Amino acid sequence: MPHLTLEYSANLDGFDAGATLRALNVALAASGHFDERDIKSRALRLDTFAVGTSPAPRAFVHAKLAVLSGRPTDVKREFSERVLAELKRHVVAPPGMHLQLSTEILELERESYAKAGIEPR
Amino acid sequence: MPHLTLEYSANLDGFDAGATLRALNVALAASGHFDERDIKSRALRLDTFAVGTSPAPRAFVHAKLAVLSGRPTDVKREFSERVLAELKRHVVAPPGMHLQLSTEILELERESYAKAGIEPR
Amino acid sequence: MPHLTLEYSANLDGFDAGATLRALNVALAASGHFDERDIKSRALRLDTFAVGTSPAPRAFVHAKLAVLSGRPTDVKREFSERVLAELKRHVVAPPGMHLQLSTEILELERESYAKAGIEPR
Repeated sequence: MPHLTLEYSANLDGFDAGATLRALNVALAASGHFDERDIKSRALRLDTFAVGTSPAPRAFVHAKLAVLSGRPTDVKREFSERVLAELKRHVVAPPGMHLQLSTEILELERESYAKAGIEPR
Repeated sequence: MPHLTLEYSANLDGFDAGATLRALNVALAASGHFDERDIKSRALRLDTFAVGTSPAPRAFVHAKLAVLSGRPTDVKREFSERVLAELKRHVVAPPGMHLQLSTEILELERESYAKAGIEPR
Repeated sequence: MPHLTLEYSANLDGFDAGATLRALNVALAASGHFDERDIKSRALRLDTFAVGTSPAPRAFVHAKLAVLSGRPTDVKREFSERVLAELKRHVVAPPGMHLQLSTEILELERESYAKAGIEPR
């Protein structure tokens, strides 16, 4: 942990998901709460999506950050604000399009989390 | 919020994920619990999947609906029933195939949820 | 339920996600806790990912197992250990690459979970 998942609607022309992931990892490492190498992030491009019930042009980017359970609420809020700040910096809506950015913090149940690290051969 | 994620196994020939998302958004808006524009839905086609341990032809569609924490259980159950009803309407299994439909409600932790709406330029 | 989701970074040459899913389903069925047919698993190949902030070659595989809420912690830990053991068996990192394997257990809220099984026509 942590695990970050970035979902983005496919109508965000020019959005660089890879660069955004790298910037998010830097921001999370800078929080001082994680070992750099433990930050595992992925982006999913959403080719099939729907926002509301109107045909108006709309886009969204949603980030989920999963951290081990037990952190105080204010620390989790700091994480979501950090992530949201990076999204604001990296996501630009095409002209005429409404854009929603959001971030949620999920808790990984500590007691049942299992992991293994395998060093390079 | 809410965020809806629709996952479907790739063996459901003719399934229209886009139309199903739009119908789900209409059904969720009709519940009266959400601002229409806040409903953000996406579908993921699962090209690599496995149901159980038998080679029998099997398919599944699973919907996850994430809403802000704190709603009563009966309201959440109403949401899952609404979503399941739409799935029953829109998903047809090919002949000879067993199909499972399911819906779960997830809670977005309200205290650490962050969002921003960016109006069209 | 249960629902298993296997995510893997796209730099794991030769990783057979389908075979791994089938092995995971066998291992979960062998636990004696599930009806074989209820085990619904999918794999997502992550083409856009980032591990930490270094350009060193790194890979990860993360499994999420969602089970109905209410099981004891030691049973959930048994599930994650079973899943991790299968990952260790099936995932091999290319030479020079650091690999992280992890497993988390999620709880499906029992009260609001809805499902339907449709028998073959």
